[in-house]
Amino acid sequence: MRVRYKPWAAEKLSEHSGIVVAEPDQLKGKWNEFFGNDNPIHIEVGTGKGQFVTGMGKQNPEINYIGIELYESVLVTALDRILEENVSNVKLLNVDARDLKEFFDDGEVGRVYLNFSDPWPKARHEKRRLTYEHFLKLYEDILVENGEIHFKTDNQGLFEYSLKSFSWYGLRLNYLSLDLHNSGMEGNIMTEYEEKFSSKGDRIYRVEAQFQHS
Amino acid sequence: MRVRYKPWAAEKLSEHSGIVVAEPDQLKGKWNEFFGNDNPIHIEVGTGKGQFVTGMGKQNPEINYIGIELYESVLVTALDRILEENVSNVKLLNVDARDLKEFFDDGEVGRVYLNFSDPWPKARHEKRRLTYEHFLKLYEDILVENGEIHFKTDNQGLFEYSLKSFSWYGLRLNYLSLDLHNSGMEGNIMTEYEEKFSSKGDRIYRVEAQFQHS
Repeated sequence: MRVRYKPWAAEKLSEHSGIVVAEPDQLKGKWNEFFGNDNPIHIEVGTGKGQFVTGMGKQNPEINYIGIELYESVLVTALDRILEENVSNVKLLNVDARDLKEFFDDGEVGRVYLNFSDPWPKARHEKRRLTYEHFLKLYEDILVENGEIHFKTDNQGLFEYSLKSFSWYGLRLNYLSLDLHNSGMEGNIMTEYEEKFSSKGDRIYRVEAQFQHS
Repeated sequence: MRVRYKPWAAEKLSEHSGIVVAEPDQLKGKWNEFFGNDNPIHIEVGTGKGQFVTGMGKQNPEINYIGIELYESVLVTALDRILEENVSNVKLLNVDARDLKEFFDDGEVGRVYLNFSDPWPKARHEKRRLTYEHFLKLYEDILVENGEIHFKTDNQGLFEYSLKSFSWYGLRLNYLSLDLHNSGMEGNIMTEYEEKFSSKGDRIYRVEAQFQHS
């Protein structure tokens, strides 16, 4: 994603600590307390401008959503969206996905969403891909038993890589579409990227992969 | 595949028992003896008109190939091809894939090829798909330890199904292409179907899936 430098972004995020959680490590193991309910907690890793996580929050009020995004300059757009839509079950974290375990206890997360993640196409950047083995281990740890990753992308290479990575990790595929927008799936919430690429006629790939209790 | 009835086919096949093996159950556990060498034995399940298996035989003289096909009327074309090309390392079996274990001993087969298998798109025909769990069990039994299935198809639904089926069986994907003919793969031997569909611009999907020694 092209990231525009917005020096005022950090300040704006800090002004809305009810939505952009300021010290998320303090909430590790206490997210349900924070949300004030026992609803499942679903996270999106790499939430970008927040269209997906906000749309999901509106569609599913019985789920708590947390969008995780490293870049402040896009997260401010996600913040604006949540403020506009006035959804109370969607929160944001301005943190690095590599540190997920600092913010979530084992089994605290009900589902992980990955949408149009950076493909990092060069072989030497494999470890940065959010479906690399090391990240799968992080997700497995913070997810409930038999938790699922729901992943979609327009990037053929990343999707091929991810299916291979899932298979080596022993994940089972409960759902797979190699052409989501011609698959008849209902209730699909689109990301900004998805709208752009699918309107150009690009295929969208989607998979639901489940960890196996060993 | 549309199968034309050819009443003379059975007779023609029986006249070439050096290629179309007449009593393959007698050769169970003795295929290397039959071929007269210790080379690996690779089988293609659903060999159709034999373009793939014949091409592979010519490309890889150090491998023994066995093409398996239920329908006599297409197998005669495979026979003609082998006779024309005069390849000695390609044999044919006119048998049902469900009976594979009658013809091959445990661990006797080095690799299984599936090419453009019948998609059987109706849910009630799932059990007929050559990547259904029951068939995977057959392949696992007759394959060497950590043996592989190499599978390609133009059928999106069958490919999606097969990747799910592989994941539930615990197979690992060593290779995956969602667009084989734009993937830079070298040495690809095309089937008749593959030539037809790829020339129309259809995508060809390909995967190499490996059994895990448990």
